[in-house]
Amino acid sequence: MTSHSPKGAFKIAIAGLGTVGGGVVKALAARGPELSSRAGRKLEIIGVSARSKNKARGIDVAGWTDDPLTLAKGDADVVVELIGGEEGIARQLVESALANKKHVVTANKALLAKHGKALADLAEKNGVTLKFEAAAAGGIPIVKALREGLIAHGVDAVKGILNGTCNYILTEMESSGRSFADVLKEAQAKGYAEADPTLDVGGGDTAHKLALLTSIAFGTAPDLGAIAVEGIEHISPDDIAFASEFGFRIKLLGVAKRMGNKIDQKVHPAMVRVRSSLANVSGAANGVLVDAGEAGSFFFSGRGAGEAPTASAVIADIVEAAGGTLSPVFGRPAASLAKLNLADGKQAVSSWYLRFEVLDVPGVLASITRHLADAGVSIESMIQRGRAPGEPVAIVMITHETAQHEVERALKAIGASDKVRARPCMIPMEL
Amino acid sequence: MTSHSPKGAFKIAIAGLGTVGGGVVKALAARGPELSSRAGRKLEIIGVSARSKNKARGIDVAGWTDDPLTLAKGDADVVVELIGGEEGIARQLVESALANKKHVVTANKALLAKHGKALADLAEKNGVTLKFEAAAAGGIPIVKALREGLIAHGVDAVKGILNGTCNYILTEMESSGRSFADVLKEAQAKGYAEADPTLDVGGGDTAHKLALLTSIAFGTAPDLGAIAVEGIEHISPDDIAFASEFGFRIKLLGVAKRMGNKIDQKVHPAMVRVRSSLANVSGAANGVLVDAGEAGSFFFSGRGAGEAPTASAVIADIVEAAGGTLSPVFGRPAASLAKLNLADGKQAVSSWYLRFEVLDVPGVLASITRHLADAGVSIESMIQRGRAPGEPVAIVMITHETAQHEVERALKAIGASDKVRARPCMIPMEL
Repeated sequence: MTSHSPKGAFKIAIAGLGTVGGGVVKALAARGPELSSRAGRKLEIIGVSARSKNKARGIDVAGWTDDPLTLAKGDADVVVELIGGEEGIARQLVESALANKKHVVTANKALLAKHGKALADLAEKNGVTLKFEAAAAGGIPIVKALREGLIAHGVDAVKGILNGTCNYILTEMESSGRSFADVLKEAQAKGYAEADPTLDVGGGDTAHKLALLTSIAFGTAPDLGAIAVEGIEHISPDDIAFASEFGFRIKLLGVAKRMGNKIDQKVHPAMVRVRSSLANVSGAANGVLVDAGEAGSFFFSGRGAGEAPTASAVIADIVEAAGGTLSPVFGRPAASLAKLNLADGKQAVSSWYLRFEVLDVPGVLASITRHLADAGVSIESMIQRGRAPGEPVAIVMITHETAQHEVERALKAIGASDKVRARPCMIPMEL
Repeated sequence: MTSHSPKGAFKIAIAGLGTVGGGVVKALAARGPELSSRAGRKLEIIGVSARSKNKARGIDVAGWTDDPLTLAKGDADVVVELIGGEEGIARQLVESALANKKHVVTANKALLAKHGKALADLAEKNGVTLKFEAAAAGGIPIVKALREGLIAHGVDAVKGILNGTCNYILTEMESSGRSFADVLKEAQAKGYAEADPTLDVGGGDTAHKLALLTSIAFGTAPDLGAIAVEGIEHISPDDIAFASEFGFRIKLLGVAKRMGNKIDQKVHPAMVRVRSSLANVSGAANGVLVDAGEAGSFFFSGRGAGEAPTASAVIADIVEAAGGTLSPVFGRPAASLAKLNLADGKQAVSSWYLRFEVLDVPGVLASITRHLADAGVSIESMIQRGRAPGEPVAIVMITHETAQHEVERALKAIGASDKVRARPCMIPMEL
């Protein structure tokens, strides 16, 4: 199994010829000899499958089959699964390919976040590899960096901007001052956001990717259920403007970090300092900060979605599979992947940004500050800004470091007041 | 050769127990079982060697030998070369280890920049691997990212802050307004710079690292001689202050980029926009920007030197070697590494920052602008700043895009004037 010895062609079957699948076929066609040279053997597509054979794609569909499941039983050395979805055909195809001792390369974060451990077991049992660089942060080689690079001193935290749609919306909201709903509508019109944007803006897609990065970073089985998820739908232009006044920017982060011998794993909007690496990830880009213990912090950024960046990650996995590398799927033998020992995230301590929309009547501020004091929350700074007469007033506070559950207790009491409009907004500060 | 099948211990010999070697021994001692689990076999240090056995290092030196060359002939599966130097013992050890069919892991950029192609040939001939993640950008897994990650669409450019000493000095000069000489002296006192700082501040160390990154990115044999090298010794506090006025920051960059079918490869100070990724690499950190063709730009940053980050890179290589991966040394078979087809760097087009120190007498500015016009250099913006009477005046210009040789021709003519003090300063703007 060395790339130095002469070997036959490495036979590739691709299921799914959408944006990514098409990109893979195009890149292999454009740079086949160079990629074959890197792989140590000829890379050859022997089968493809997709929903419709006749769709204009501008690529060669030699080896077409209507039933993707046949690809798992043919002559392929690797099956590239780009169908998507955590169940159904995608899952059947991956399981069947592994059982038939074929390597699998996939971009399917949902499948791996849900069935990752079982699929890793299956791959190892059959002596093949299951690779998924494209499933998290697109073109950024972060899976490889965590699985193979930053391993010597352990990982204390991973913080990632993992969803380009959310980051695009937040960046646009900041630069234009427009509302979430407005910017989302424009993003949908431009094709940057799905018709049903829930999975993106609700944080679910970020959670899928985070589950995979957590697994590799901490040696645990992916556990999507153990992620508290909050999206960006409730972020207002006010929040973004106030953040800027305090020298911060709002980003949707997937965060996994050690708390003692447990792991805290969350998806939520966070305030990051304007000059920090994460704050400077703009538009549809992705970025990941890894705190690698004694080795220090490392930062990775680039395009996290789209045809060429995602195809780039898929092709890197194909070339590696062709070279004969059989490193464990999540960096450690599947049998050794521990059940994630979830920390109580509500104990996590942070400074918090709080925004209240209140009626401009006497005693409101006194009532809010009393509830905060009762819950043990102390205030570091505050802005109250008048509006047109009759309109609600925004009161914004930054707290000293406080556990999440204490702030939530205060907000619950405050929210019960008929002087406070809407749900108070609460965003942790990444300091 | 898979990590799934049971295998015996992977036997490690380490030559050189300085900062990095000590860090490797410590990390393997601290996290042996986890790292062995990742490698798929037990990692075991069976031999060590260094200049003095009795130096206090706080580590176990079981398996000591006075002669490092014996490590190449013993039972080790991998020899870790951390002696340094492009010739002498380090070279003999690496050659002997490879010839004896032992894997080699090294942090030795000078050795590889000079003899990389021959050593890659030797490794492949003997069916072993030669790994060097630690040789460029320390803990940042950039060798892996270029060799295995960003391969699908080719690389158009690599731009790196690869020397922490230079970046520390430039960062300090900016924050304190002090001179290069002052900051260097302080850095030496603190141990951040060598007693003889030439290799760092003169750009030579950056050139060594760039030679390796160029090779992996472009599929060429490392060619240190084909790098035009300029250091930071001539950068003045004035340059840094003017850069800031224009919204730029000065960084020492190693740059390799395609120019047609040739490669332009240079080390020089450059102006980078204050909000760019590279500008925000502060202090002793390193950062690398890779323009990966259609896949877009990717950025990597983190600690580029020091015990833990460098040991982290060495250990990643050891674990990979233990797993049996035999990927080509520079990403492609050694025999296919082309001779670097060097572009004429003086044809490279850029905007330029120019600073002249002139006597405040009539006609100086007219003379300078005439020489620039004669060479075809047009000016986009200019600052002339008065000083105390009798002191030279600084004239600073930003040019429109112009080829380097044209600007140099004008500066040569201008420099001949007895009204111009010292050598004019010329720094390209990375736009």
